[in-house]
Amino acid sequence: MKIENYIRDIQDFPKEGILFKDITPLLNNPQARTECLKILVDSLKGQQIDKVVGAESRGFFFGMLLANELNAGFVPVRKPKKLPHETISASYELEYGIDTLEMHRDAIQKGDRILIHDDVLATGGTAKAVCDLVTELGGEIVQCNFLMELSFLNGRDKLGKFPIFAALTY
Amino acid sequence: MKIENYIRDIQDFPKEGILFKDITPLLNNPQARTECLKILVDSLKGQQIDKVVGAESRGFFFGMLLANELNAGFVPVRKPKKLPHETISASYELEYGIDTLEMHRDAIQKGDRILIHDDVLATGGTAKAVCDLVTELGGEIVQCNFLMELSFLNGRDKLGKFPIFAALTY
Repeated sequence: MKIENYIRDIQDFPKEGILFKDITPLLNNPQARTECLKILVDSLKGQQIDKVVGAESRGFFFGMLLANELNAGFVPVRKPKKLPHETISASYELEYGIDTLEMHRDAIQKGDRILIHDDVLATGGTAKAVCDLVTELGGEIVQCNFLMELSFLNGRDKLGKFPIFAALTY
Repeated sequence: MKIENYIRDIQDFPKEGILFKDITPLLNNPQARTECLKILVDSLKGQQIDKVVGAESRGFFFGMLLANELNAGFVPVRKPKKLPHETISASYELEYGIDTLEMHRDAIQKGDRILIHDDVLATGGTAKAVCDLVTELGGEIVQCNFLMELSFLNGRDKLGKFPIFAALTY
């Protein structure tokens, strides 16, 4: 079973000139989903993980499965004003403007071993902001993992020293 | 282990006068999360489920765990313009105005046995819209399940004949 067969190319989404990688066929196929989860878990080579941090909202899908498989907590990182308790925030640049992500301040304790997950590593802005949030609370980032990496966008460069794994690379 | 100990009350969120039930402590505790998942799965009494439909975005959390546990597909229902392929849509009334949800047209086939999941059954608007989407595509709704039901809001009345289960009732 090849998981890449369950990623669908969508032309001109969300805007003209963008080739969007649609993961909904992967979510909707239990065998492909399980295979993808196994690839992500195997990449950790048995390293202990205390908490999985997933970015809103496509990072919630496999983020929850990873937390379940690793018997770890799950921490959602969300857009501003979505999390109800005390938060910390990190901002990152978009093509035009700035975006901000938030995490609950009490979600991570100093020394927690953290797996960061999102669906796509593109320019790396989101992942870098999530790394900043985790680091601010004293979490130790074991790996940043992704369903896929769009390598031509060089997002890897923004994440510096942190180990990176992607189940698929384009 | 009582899962209700992992739901946190937040006063005046998202606006004054609302007592918000925060599920992030439940997501962040693997034992409580596993216990909650077991309660939801047990409520199905072994009925076969082909697909779990989860509503954006807090329905994605346990929706994915349910799909994994039941070896079923997962289908996200999202806010407008978030899903990249051909969609169908359903609208529902809010206190002021109207909200719309979308689902991919090819996500469900006629006769699929469907479990609908969301975190909270409140007024029932969201859940009713999701039921309408599933029904439009010919899916058979086996159950609508929720982490919690706010029974004083009578959301149950909107869902008519469909079986409803909530792990917690307030």
